[in-house]
Amino acid sequence: MTAPVVPHFAPLSDADARTLGSVAQDLLDQLARVTDEPGQVARTYLSPAHARSIDLVGAWMRMRGLATRVDAVATLSGRREADIAPETAKTLLLGSHIDTVLDAGKLDGCLGVVAALLAVEEIDRLGVKLPFAVEILAFGDEEGVRFPTALSSSSAVTGTYRREWLEVRDRDGRSLGDALADFGCDTDRIEDACIDPAGVLGFLEVHIEQGPLLEHWGLPLGVVTSIAGQSRFSFSLQGVAGHAGTVPMDLRRDALTGLAEMALTVERIGRQGTSGLVATVGRVEVKPGAGNTVPGRVEATLDVRAGADAPRLVAIDRIRHEAERIAARRGLGFELHRHIDVPTCPMDEALQEAFARSVASLGLDVRRLPSGAGHDAMAMARAFPAAMLFVRSKDGISHNPKEWSSPDDIGLGIEALTRTILDLAERHGGGTT
Amino acid sequence: MTAPVVPHFAPLSDADARTLGSVAQDLLDQLARVTDEPGQVARTYLSPAHARSIDLVGAWMRMRGLATRVDAVATLSGRREADIAPETAKTLLLGSHIDTVLDAGKLDGCLGVVAALLAVEEIDRLGVKLPFAVEILAFGDEEGVRFPTALSSSSAVTGTYRREWLEVRDRDGRSLGDALADFGCDTDRIEDACIDPAGVLGFLEVHIEQGPLLEHWGLPLGVVTSIAGQSRFSFSLQGVAGHAGTVPMDLRRDALTGLAEMALTVERIGRQGTSGLVATVGRVEVKPGAGNTVPGRVEATLDVRAGADAPRLVAIDRIRHEAERIAARRGLGFELHRHIDVPTCPMDEALQEAFARSVASLGLDVRRLPSGAGHDAMAMARAFPAAMLFVRSKDGISHNPKEWSSPDDIGLGIEALTRTILDLAERHGGGTT
Repeated sequence: MTAPVVPHFAPLSDADARTLGSVAQDLLDQLARVTDEPGQVARTYLSPAHARSIDLVGAWMRMRGLATRVDAVATLSGRREADIAPETAKTLLLGSHIDTVLDAGKLDGCLGVVAALLAVEEIDRLGVKLPFAVEILAFGDEEGVRFPTALSSSSAVTGTYRREWLEVRDRDGRSLGDALADFGCDTDRIEDACIDPAGVLGFLEVHIEQGPLLEHWGLPLGVVTSIAGQSRFSFSLQGVAGHAGTVPMDLRRDALTGLAEMALTVERIGRQGTSGLVATVGRVEVKPGAGNTVPGRVEATLDVRAGADAPRLVAIDRIRHEAERIAARRGLGFELHRHIDVPTCPMDEALQEAFARSVASLGLDVRRLPSGAGHDAMAMARAFPAAMLFVRSKDGISHNPKEWSSPDDIGLGIEALTRTILDLAERHGGGTT
Repeated sequence: MTAPVVPHFAPLSDADARTLGSVAQDLLDQLARVTDEPGQVARTYLSPAHARSIDLVGAWMRMRGLATRVDAVATLSGRREADIAPETAKTLLLGSHIDTVLDAGKLDGCLGVVAALLAVEEIDRLGVKLPFAVEILAFGDEEGVRFPTALSSSSAVTGTYRREWLEVRDRDGRSLGDALADFGCDTDRIEDACIDPAGVLGFLEVHIEQGPLLEHWGLPLGVVTSIAGQSRFSFSLQGVAGHAGTVPMDLRRDALTGLAEMALTVERIGRQGTSGLVATVGRVEVKPGAGNTVPGRVEATLDVRAGADAPRLVAIDRIRHEAERIAARRGLGFELHRHIDVPTCPMDEALQEAFARSVASLGLDVRRLPSGAGHDAMAMARAFPAAMLFVRSKDGISHNPKEWSSPDDIGLGIEALTRTILDLAERHGGGTT
């Protein structure tokens, strides 16, 4: 699975990787201190901390010679024009998001923005002339914490923003439209946030893995093949509650033991799947929930994801079939409702190859993996060739203050992004110093 | 399993059973209207409704010539002296409890008191001379709803009352001792409630089954072999929570699928057991309990009961062993804590036989079954020979307004109790008219 090595790059020394990672870490630490909740990282869309983070990251961009602007949905962008034929050059988009979950870590989203910034700085330091413009995007609404509108910022860039989103409200009853206006955004101009795909080479997003696979493989970086398709269900099992002392085993219709069989079936089918299939029963409520009562009802959720649609859809069919069989055998009522059904979003093949060449040039094994979580690249892929590079997460932990990647791994991620930009420049007739 | 038929009794006609049952039903309906909560049956220990129920049942007793008293823990008793050598005669104790759970049915407990009352009435109607006194006990604290002191009334009668119980408090912070004093009970005289076992022939309790076995067998009555021993545990499984999209199946330590294996193991071991073994996982809490998160922790309960100690203890050992194996294989932490451990309480053999003979004399098959639920007979058995007769419950439902037994079945239960008293009288040199 190794790709051809870009010949004029040598593997990065551990010391150089660590130095680059440490610079990034310092920026990430500064950004983490911009928070709405003292003592934790919490920066939701259009909050005061979001405004201050735009100021801070914008200042970093301008210090590096980028021209900044904030679009009508509060996405900050910093643009570096092409060095060669700027009037006809296309644009390479980079970045990720600067909003966070509540009590977040320092890396999710922010790493992708900081990595882009430091990659552009490295290119300028090398004095490379680029045949395309580079624009770093710092999206404000990826997590969908404050409003039920995840990925709305990147949707605006691709022209797939839905105006009805302006009516959704936060828990204080404030509409998204009003919150945008308060933030200084002109919601009549959301269409202006759209970037014409004809002028775009693609979108590259560096992100922490948020999972344990790279750590398991002993690799700092991985190339994302696709963002997993996802189907989410709720289901219920209806049995008969009874006295745990008086209802004999063979007369029971125990909803919990029915669920138990189903959970093991979901696990078994998940293990048998391909394309990174995962299947999870995550929320379970057992009723009436007393120690001396045979459970009469269970309500639960099922989450099935895979890096390709067919394995996911086949697994769902198998789970449904097996669950119906289990329920029938046990005399339980069974209902299954699908709430979410998002198809797999494949990453652009050519950009995956560019990432793979850069990773290989660093002397690293190239491993590919699907992303189980959603990302801005999923929305960006609607309009542009998009690809992602994952950086190893310690213990796979994310959305948590314990979220961590080593400075070495972060440095390698930034260097891989830099080399990918140079690789693309070379292929577009530029890249000379 | 049929016992010898008492020769001078013929099977009861359906019409006679129904008539007797209808009289009982009328009394039970009257008693059900004595409640602390309009619209439902709710009569907890030492409540205003409990006081009024003592007045009502006491009046019924006195109307039937019984001498009533209320002891120091508010147990109502109605005594009929022996017809033959009353000064040396022993006493046969009958009865059950008149407290209820919240939103109760009409039968649990009350049927045993009403059945005793109508059996004594029937004996008087037949003009039979008894060689022993009969005392009907209407206990006030079987359910343990208001105070955490189930069976305290019957414990007082057997001299096993614990004075520290007087310190326990209801949800309003009122101590049991103060509540007894308010009720007019002299807590300095609790020892006087004790009945000397030397003078007692035994205790007979008629009760609804509260389970589905008699209905399943198509039988109105069953003789209780023992009150099941009971062990109750809480246990926990500690795995690692993770993102349902990013943690691959083979790197998960999912606490829920661990629980699933255990719940099926508990079910399998329960099904393989003897002596009416039942094993139940009843309360389950799955944490963090989000649809997109692999469960990291499960807390649950285990309830194991059987009509004999050995099958219960063997099952617990097997469950513990299998659970440890499952946890180890899945890399889960496992903790098990035992909260309750009550040995099996066998019913008196001779009194079981007396009940069996009466059931057979009614032309019914004699089936024996353990009681999975606790009863006053369990406390009474500490001091006296004790036995129970179960009346078929519709759908096994109890502790619920839907609790129901047919008038025919109730009538047969009362007639069986009557015949048991007559059978004992005959064996004690009385029973002549």
